Amino acid sequence: MSEIVFQPVGRRVTAAPGETLLEAAQSAGVAISAVCGGIGVCGDCRVRVLRGTVSAPNAIEQDQLTDSDQAAGLRLACQTVIKGAGEIVVDVPRESLSAPQRSQVEGAEIPLAVEPAIQVHDLSAAPPSIHDLRGDWERVQGIDPAAWRLDAPVLAELPGVLRAHGWQTRLIAHGADVVRFLPPGMTPFGFAVDVGTTGLAAYLVDLLTGQTRGIAGATNPQIAYGEDVMARLTLAVRDPAGAARLQAVMVEVLNGLLREVCTQAGVPTDRVVDLVAVGNTAMHHLLLGLPVEQLGSAPYVPAIASPLVIPARPLGLEAAPGARLYLPPNVAGFVGADHVAMLLATATADQPGVTLSLDIGTNTEVTLNAHGQLWCCSTASGPAFEGAHIRDGMRAAAGAIERLIWQDGGLRWLTIEHAPPVGLCGSGILDAVAVLRAAGILSDTGAMRRDDPRVRREDYNPRYEIVPAAQTGHGREVALSRGDVNEVQLAKAAIRAGIKLLVERAGLSEAEIDRVIVAGAFGNYIDLQSAITIGMFPPLPLERFHQVGNAAGIGAKRLLINAPERARAAVLVARLRYIELTNHPDFSDRFSQAVRLTPDPWDA
Amino acid sequence: MSEIVFQPVGRRVTAAPGETLLEAAQSAGVAISAVCGGIGVCGDCRVRVLRGTVSAPNAIEQDQLTDSDQAAGLRLACQTVIKGAGEIVVDVPRESLSAPQRSQVEGAEIPLAVEPAIQVHDLSAAPPSIHDLRGDWERVQGIDPAAWRLDAPVLAELPGVLRAHGWQTRLIAHGADVVRFLPPGMTPFGFAVDVGTTGLAAYLVDLLTGQTRGIAGATNPQIAYGEDVMARLTLAVRDPAGAARLQAVMVEVLNGLLREVCTQAGVPTDRVVDLVAVGNTAMHHLLLGLPVEQLGSAPYVPAIASPLVIPARPLGLEAAPGARLYLPPNVAGFVGADHVAMLLATATADQPGVTLSLDIGTNTEVTLNAHGQLWCCSTASGPAFEGAHIRDGMRAAAGAIERLIWQDGGLRWLTIEHAPPVGLCGSGILDAVAVLRAAGILSDTGAMRRDDPRVRREDYNPRYEIVPAAQTGHGREVALSRGDVNEVQLAKAAIRAGIKLLVERAGLSEAEIDRVIVAGAFGNYIDLQSAITIGMFPPLPLERFHQVGNAAGIGAKRLLINAPERARAAVLVARLRYIELTNHPDFSDRFSQAVRLTPDPWDA
Repeated sequence: MSEIVFQPVGRRVTAAPGETLLEAAQSAGVAISAVCGGIGVCGDCRVRVLRGTVSAPNAIEQDQLTDSDQAAGLRLACQTVIKGAGEIVVDVPRESLSAPQRSQVEGAEIPLAVEPAIQVHDLSAAPPSIHDLRGDWERVQGIDPAAWRLDAPVLAELPGVLRAHGWQTRLIAHGADVVRFLPPGMTPFGFAVDVGTTGLAAYLVDLLTGQTRGIAGATNPQIAYGEDVMARLTLAVRDPAGAARLQAVMVEVLNGLLREVCTQAGVPTDRVVDLVAVGNTAMHHLLLGLPVEQLGSAPYVPAIASPLVIPARPLGLEAAPGARLYLPPNVAGFVGADHVAMLLATATADQPGVTLSLDIGTNTEVTLNAHGQLWCCSTASGPAFEGAHIRDGMRAAAGAIERLIWQDGGLRWLTIEHAPPVGLCGSGILDAVAVLRAAGILSDTGAMRRDDPRVRREDYNPRYEIVPAAQTGHGREVALSRGDVNEVQLAKAAIRAGIKLLVERAGLSEAEIDRVIVAGAFGNYIDLQSAITIGMFPPLPLERFHQVGNAAGIGAKRLLINAPERARAAVLVARLRYIELTNHPDFSDRFSQAVRLTPDPWDA
Repeated sequence: MSEIVFQPVGRRVTAAPGETLLEAAQSAGVAISAVCGGIGVCGDCRVRVLRGTVSAPNAIEQDQLTDSDQAAGLRLACQTVIKGAGEIVVDVPRESLSAPQRSQVEGAEIPLAVEPAIQVHDLSAAPPSIHDLRGDWERVQGIDPAAWRLDAPVLAELPGVLRAHGWQTRLIAHGADVVRFLPPGMTPFGFAVDVGTTGLAAYLVDLLTGQTRGIAGATNPQIAYGEDVMARLTLAVRDPAGAARLQAVMVEVLNGLLREVCTQAGVPTDRVVDLVAVGNTAMHHLLLGLPVEQLGSAPYVPAIASPLVIPARPLGLEAAPGARLYLPPNVAGFVGADHVAMLLATATADQPGVTLSLDIGTNTEVTLNAHGQLWCCSTASGPAFEGAHIRDGMRAAAGAIERLIWQDGGLRWLTIEHAPPVGLCGSGILDAVAVLRAAGILSDTGAMRRDDPRVRREDYNPRYEIVPAAQTGHGREVALSRGDVNEVQLAKAAIRAGIKLLVERAGLSEAEIDRVIVAGAFGNYIDLQSAITIGMFPPLPLERFHQVGNAAGIGAKRLLINAPERARAAVLVARLRYIELTNHPDFSDRFSQAVRLTPDPWDA
């Protein structure tokens, strides 16, 4: 066995010869970026072996790494195999880490009555005596002991609470299930979480007042096992232990968030008596340990679409002994409960006229409310806007260029935390394409001008230098390549084609859309004009667009505070007409048209 | 750390200096007998240290061990402390082991309709296609997916079962809860267990036919932590880790039995979809991890008396993912669900005339059906008939004298498995007292004749030599001491006083009892005439007595096979009028009278 030390984080782990450095990093909880899931095609997992015996660079590495990378001692962690038994010291450069992204936990809220799924009953009991030998549960007054369902860990709290609090207790119930025996007068709390593919947003709510008492965000730790949903589904199908690990790290991060928001409110986590989790269908299945083989291959069906209410503790969540976890209904394999929550939070289904709601991610969910008819689809927009498959792409962490403008004949850029630039995050990538297109450096087919001095043509993949090497945080230039532009074209074409097909299905034109609701972290930060310039969004007046932030998280909170909202979720899902794009007769035509970098690609 | 090896079983365990050999044995799962719970007063835990460094014998050991014991190198495991770091080899003599007792798994059965608590639904599903993208659960035909409760581990089996079995499944339900998705045509099984203070009896039942498909018995592993209920309750109250360990060893032995009966039937344990456990109130609470402080101190009330139906998997039981465990109602702190099960199995409540039902143990439960009126009590008969607090007492293992008669002016004895005698088990102790009383060697006050050559008077505690040292299995004599006789007098007086008080409460005389039902392992093996001779049972004609074996286990099986029996259990408990003896005005009078060794102690 070797001991592997990952620097600069200083994490240590024991690993067997034959394991790769990426596997060792995953065991150690070091979140090395691995978009491709460790098969050697993304080139993200660059590390430097400072000391110790590892395999020599293989053909995949020689292909993926430039000569200067190789000269600098860089290796691909997924291809580098541990040899022998000594200590191995590995340096993980900042840009190879799946850095904690900027979390999106707040968003626009619509007021709601406090009407939670749990009920509160304040009860007292007759103390036992030699003349009253009933059980503690039977001595609680005003209830029929046979009418309730009680599990042992819930019941275990009753004798102590009654004796410590003058034979009084506050019974928290979920229907006929007893959830917890609280001391009298104590406030029950609820926990809502939006489980995104890359990030999580969590809320602690006082279930008596509906007030938010804690907010926290975290990176989805499954990123270390594959950045996109498909890589994780593939791992889970290929390896049952991998599926178990994906579930375990998810439960662990949820418990971390639970502790964090409870610490903010100054209460223990077992005061949480009700939980809501929303996520896409894959996150839903991986959290619950459901099989995903049928979800990851055509025709991509979920194990369940119906809503679930399950005990939280057996799943490993550190909530109250009888706490229930509610998972809203899924719509389809690629339209999950997070989209349902987003639609509820934005009241999309209740809007008059024509409303388009978008949740942009690796898959983009699109719902169109056309005068009360609800159409929805999912479109494979890919991870380009999360920085994957982009030469200098990265997520929205410090040093990411998030905004670009053309000023005085040249590019000006703004980075997150004003750190020296390291790469481009989603909104920066979008701006870069839009600005270069507007400046005429890119054509509407995405071709790069040959005569611009900042266009480099050293290889088959020309690139536009955005930041010279001398000005960056890592000494390498930050550029946008022709390949990157192509990735953006594919991504935005998928989104625009989805919008177009829903609008056509409803018998409308894009110009008739009264409002566009753009949800999610990426959607919240993008420049709308850039999105219109490249043709990702229809060319509508900017005031029709509403960037609503983490509407899925807000929706989760609403489902926690207001039980009738759960019934509305079921009604909403029944109203949604899902359009499958993969076999839609017009999709490929619309998609090819939408690839053009122009606000109105249909005008060809 | 030291490594401790227990011989002849060959079990190894690592232990820290400062731990006692008894603690190490308990960690190793070596069931050294420790009636007193390890405080050095019972002298049961004799071991021999063959190698290694331990503490020198202390004052308690010098007091408890005879000179010859000490000369033979015997130590008390509870007093012997581990020193240093080397290997320690410990010999555990056979008589120091809590040996697996002779199990009682069969008994008289009353026929019953097969009407289990679970329901079987054979269902088929429409395969998915690009035109049918519903979830797997929603594609199952003939059910309303929203009408059921589904937990994640249950649902996780559905996609695989449907795809492997032509889109068919057998849904096993418990009310609205889905318990398991079985492949089509597969038989669901049930598991019933009687959890006794000293032994467990388990049954596997085919829930379609009601046939018993496996039977197994085991020693209650909690014995290693204290032989009687009070010692275990004290441990659980004093030390939360101790309570957790008592629960863990119980779950472990239940899983062992589950595996054993399933192996007999050739099925995996996850085919078990319904479970029933009966036990006294203390076993019930310790299994469920309920607090026992209020159960172990006056006025001795349970946390719950009502029946419970709880998920089995979160408790640690290796049954089907959604399997439910049913625990019948308890009557009071010292009358548990095992007595309820026994009353159901023997149809005590349905008998005409006057029926007395007894379950003899450390606590003896007594129920009197007096022309349809049901009275019941629990009486503290103590562990004498389990061999505890008896000079040469032991449980019913090989070498135990189980039967004694007086023949040709002397004692004749019979041992279990015809092994060389080692001690006296319960029925042997009872016979010994009865035979010596009948032979005039004991008076009705329990005094021993001074002039019998086999009465030894070397110390304050005279004894009657039953087997001379030369004929025993361990080279020490087996004898019955005056102290032993006293223990038997106290035990039988408690039982007889309980019977008498119930009969008086019903306004009857003992002679009016039409039938006496004697349940349990001890009750099954005793000589009824001996019990009458010493005045434990009323002097009724022998044909009125019915020794029914493990009626509690049979009752558990009935509650598994027939759900209406569960409703009958609730009705029965509501009909039972519990008489608390500890504060009964006549108890101490009746008890003092009943101490006399005579068939009719009231005749004084």
